[in-house]
Amino acid sequence: MSDICRGRKPVIDLLTKSPEKCAKLFIANNVRPPFLDELLEAAKVSGVIYQIVDPRALDKLSEGDKHQGVICTLNPVKQVDLDEFLKNIPEGPALIVVLDHLEDPHNLGAVIRSAEAGGALCVIHAKRRAAIPNDTVIKTSAGAALRLPVIQVVNITRTLEALKAKNFWTIGLDSEAKISIWSDKLPERTALVIGAEGFGLSRLVSESCDMLMKIPIKKDSAGSLNASVAAALGVFEWSRSYASC
Amino acid sequence: MSDICRGRKPVIDLLTKSPEKCAKLFIANNVRPPFLDELLEAAKVSGVIYQIVDPRALDKLSEGDKHQGVICTLNPVKQVDLDEFLKNIPEGPALIVVLDHLEDPHNLGAVIRSAEAGGALCVIHAKRRAAIPNDTVIKTSAGAALRLPVIQVVNITRTLEALKAKNFWTIGLDSEAKISIWSDKLPERTALVIGAEGFGLSRLVSESCDMLMKIPIKKDSAGSLNASVAAALGVFEWSRSYASC
Repeated sequence: MSDICRGRKPVIDLLTKSPEKCAKLFIANNVRPPFLDELLEAAKVSGVIYQIVDPRALDKLSEGDKHQGVICTLNPVKQVDLDEFLKNIPEGPALIVVLDHLEDPHNLGAVIRSAEAGGALCVIHAKRRAAIPNDTVIKTSAGAALRLPVIQVVNITRTLEALKAKNFWTIGLDSEAKISIWSDKLPERTALVIGAEGFGLSRLVSESCDMLMKIPIKKDSAGSLNASVAAALGVFEWSRSYASC
Repeated sequence: MSDICRGRKPVIDLLTKSPEKCAKLFIANNVRPPFLDELLEAAKVSGVIYQIVDPRALDKLSEGDKHQGVICTLNPVKQVDLDEFLKNIPEGPALIVVLDHLEDPHNLGAVIRSAEAGGALCVIHAKRRAAIPNDTVIKTSAGAALRLPVIQVVNITRTLEALKAKNFWTIGLDSEAKISIWSDKLPERTALVIGAEGFGLSRLVSESCDMLMKIPIKKDSAGSLNASVAAALGVFEWSRSYASC
């Protein structure tokens, strides 16, 4: 089954911001104005084909998840090619977020949202089975996954080499690292590398980083940081120095 | 029904770290060693009564959610009293996180986790129907909700006055604020006030804060920050200056 986007806000966001990602819009026959008008107008403006259907058809399409009477099926995601993307990166301060096998779509969506807000150029992550953005990722990212380039790659260590060749410093976040992320300004061109939930960076990826840094947490605390929170702290550590807010 | 804690990691955490919160442990009769031994040992050490039951009994108790063969029912949460807690706060640097009607238990758990890791003394939030920590909050907080005092209050504005009387600066996070959270060191004694998802601080609470500050996000970005990410950025902004990591 193709990926779908469901729910009023996500679908309206999709239609208005990324119509090229929409395959077909399905509207339940019990959706009423003014939302119905809003939907039809957005479909008209974006040129997306729609069909009014029985709500049960949406239940089936949605496999039991809430849809609020509206579902849009998605075109296969047009993948951004890393090499193409890197060719067009300007000189000067730049941030790229690299995810080393982050598995949870909620965390992925959360990272994309923070990356966009903090001024990152893109999010790169290892290829998995499902094409993204899927609707969980879109929803958790509050739409950022439809705006920020999200690039899937096969091999993270090779990606880090490509980034180094474009003058990026590759900085891995690692709770065991000796250097604090607060010890100095982050490099102007930073590729921030985030590990999987609970496991951190894989050994190979960790060894490929120019530097490992930790986000200091309270001494003697049994605590730890969620991967998407660690990512946000890293992103905004760069952002406070370089983003023109 | 009383609150429950379900799943292998959350239950083991609960038994070992907060046995006083456990009422009774239910283990499915198909749980095998070595996890069974680990459970029985933890129950023995903590003095928590257990019962081996048919897995279907757990399905019922769990109301359909995954339980991995083990559920612990919780004693009613012993509420920490704000006035008592404030009496015992030492002088000097201190951080308290105040939540103005944050509704989503995942976000609540995430904030508690970051607050603990960043060295906050406690998390204060407005009283809702359910007693917390419930198991969603415990799970999302990675156990922090069992360690860090989480104080429920009826009235947030009155709470802010009590904190001011203990020499806390009350700082509300507000995306519309003029002052950046990076513009200066946060006060030594900071009460960080976080609003509800999507709505921000209520007007009354916002007017009760000594200061409103924003976390600058990228100019022209359609982006925004998740409430728990904003909270984490605020917590660690204080932490980088005062926590002895």
